[in-house]
Amino acid sequence: MEQRVSIITLGVADLARARTFYERLGWRGQEVQETVFFQAGALVVVLWGRDKLAEDAGLTDRGADGFGGLGLAQNVRSRAEVDEILHQAAEAGATVTRPARETFYGGYAGYFTDPDGHPWEIAWNPGFALGPDGSLTVPDFG
Amino acid sequence: MEQRVSIITLGVADLARARTFYERLGWRGQEVQETVFFQAGALVVVLWGRDKLAEDAGLTDRGADGFGGLGLAQNVRSRAEVDEILHQAAEAGATVTRPARETFYGGYAGYFTDPDGHPWEIAWNPGFALGPDGSLTVPDFG
Repeated sequence: MEQRVSIITLGVADLARARTFYERLGWRGQEVQETVFFQAGALVVVLWGRDKLAEDAGLTDRGADGFGGLGLAQNVRSRAEVDEILHQAAEAGATVTRPARETFYGGYAGYFTDPDGHPWEIAWNPGFALGPDGSLTVPDFG
Repeated sequence: MEQRVSIITLGVADLARARTFYERLGWRGQEVQETVFFQAGALVVVLWGRDKLAEDAGLTDRGADGFGGLGLAQNVRSRAEVDEILHQAAEAGATVTRPARETFYGGYAGYFTDPDGHPWEIAWNPGFALGPDGSLTVPDFG
């Protein structure tokens, strides 16, 4: 199995609400057959009915409340950008679950959850190289 | 907010178990401070304690059972590769929750969950272009 991810599918309760939220953050996608596709660099972020995703995956959904065990992050280029995005997300309807703060690794980060509870960390991490295209490279910790 | 994802963090109950699982799939990473980093193209897949992730995100974890509302996918180049990866994952300790089958869009796909229940779809989709580097591009549905 190659070491890569092609698609991240966010299960949503209300597709229009979810799409509007990401559009208010500046994202632009295409909607086809009750599915929204956002090109995100080399991968695709998809919004799809949470019930449909569970059924497709052969899984039982015990409820949409709380933490789902997985988090997404976007690394940004400055502390100011962390604050700006958290503010923008809150204005768009997100819940800021962890206001931005200094991190143990010398960075600055906070979290919001989208309208379906999916957590996003927005982080400035001076130890992780962020390319001009937004690609993130793990440093050699050796 | 730029339209990109830097990190996908998979919350895990047992870091060694999770790392071993992904290594058995052929992935190679670095472990630092009870965190495993896998470079995956332009982004990074991280294994981290589920409890630590919830605490960091300011969220309450109501339990690790079942569907978390989010799914990952890897698109591959052939039907045979779908079968191979699902087989390889099962051998490595995954649960195949949806055996590979024909899909409504003319492809072929199945799902497994990793030892912490994170769902992965392995899909062959002839309508989505997969680059030599594994990048996935959404077609123009217009």
